[in-house]
Amino acid sequence: MKELLFSFIESYLPLKEEEKKVILDLDVFEFYKKGTILLNEGKYSNKSYFVLKGCIRAFYTIEGIEKTTEFYTEMEGIVPPSLTLGTASEFSIDCVEDCILSTSNPEMEGAIFERFPRFETLCRVISEELLAKNKSSFDNFKTSTPQQRYENLLTTRPELTQRVPQHQLASYLGITPQSMSRIRKRMSKMKERPNKANLLP
Amino acid sequence: MKELLFSFIESYLPLKEEEKKVILDLDVFEFYKKGTILLNEGKYSNKSYFVLKGCIRAFYTIEGIEKTTEFYTEMEGIVPPSLTLGTASEFSIDCVEDCILSTSNPEMEGAIFERFPRFETLCRVISEELLAKNKSSFDNFKTSTPQQRYENLLTTRPELTQRVPQHQLASYLGITPQSMSRIRKRMSKMKERPNKANLLP
Repeated sequence: MKELLFSFIESYLPLKEEEKKVILDLDVFEFYKKGTILLNEGKYSNKSYFVLKGCIRAFYTIEGIEKTTEFYTEMEGIVPPSLTLGTASEFSIDCVEDCILSTSNPEMEGAIFERFPRFETLCRVISEELLAKNKSSFDNFKTSTPQQRYENLLTTRPELTQRVPQHQLASYLGITPQSMSRIRKRMSKMKERPNKANLLP
Repeated sequence: MKELLFSFIESYLPLKEEEKKVILDLDVFEFYKKGTILLNEGKYSNKSYFVLKGCIRAFYTIEGIEKTTEFYTEMEGIVPPSLTLGTASEFSIDCVEDCILSTSNPEMEGAIFERFPRFETLCRVISEELLAKNKSSFDNFKTSTPQQRYENLLTTRPELTQRVPQHQLASYLGITPQSMSRIRKRMSKMKERPNKANLLP
């Protein structure tokens, strides 16, 4: 697992041996079983999560119904907004699969920044990238029809359709499971048509 | 205008006179008339904008129709995702009002970080805050009904309803102008009812 974490960091910044050792000494790896709740809505937490293996999910519970807002898979991470803004969390996080996560907290980061200031540059660059991606995702969501959102998912994160329950996926796309099922049927019919045409003499 | 910019920065970090002088020397203030296009969809740009006075808007043009995704008013700023990700911009930015903006670009920031490393901490903290707020806004959008989105706008950014055209506001909320008009009528009827009850003997 350490190699996965190092290779992610090194895609931004080559690591010195001394830095690798300090990261390992922090004992950042945690293992969780599928179904484990990592954060409960309404709670305060100072933990951020980075997924090395598995899939975690953010969800709200509104009038007794779960609304999934995000999935995080390998090499994706979440700093809960409640941690940054110092508020109680508005959502919960659970493990959709067995997970290996790398965790951190602000104290740990502060100590690292002090010792290796270039890690602060790394965190600034990663934050700016995440902000840009999050803005683009939000814009795409706002400007797309449900079918376009599903097609976009198949292009950008096709593996999700196999890894997470369909009702969670529909909720994540902001549609009902029935609508998602209709979209899938419509799309598979569209796919079949050219094949049939090919069979014509 | 410089006092506005300094007071924003100083809400995070007290500035030394030397730092203030360097910021002023960068000549960051720009004045634009209402209607000016700051960024065109499909173009590359290295400029970020911070609003000192006025209102700017991000919008997509899809099949000839403008879809507004964000408004930025006083003490809010945008680093276009295309700048961070090195791609052509997917959206345009225009001035909804006459504007006074503070602009920056990555070269300018690099030079400042080198001279005053603590500005990098400032930028990291601001990016993390913006990311947290953007995530919360996205989640709220996903988990709210159109009426809840409108009510939320009245709570968090009431001034927008007076400052921007209604069709842009509806688009920003992801609803048609007709739906927004119905929501407003329904809400004003709800407000009237308790008053009528008070008039009963």
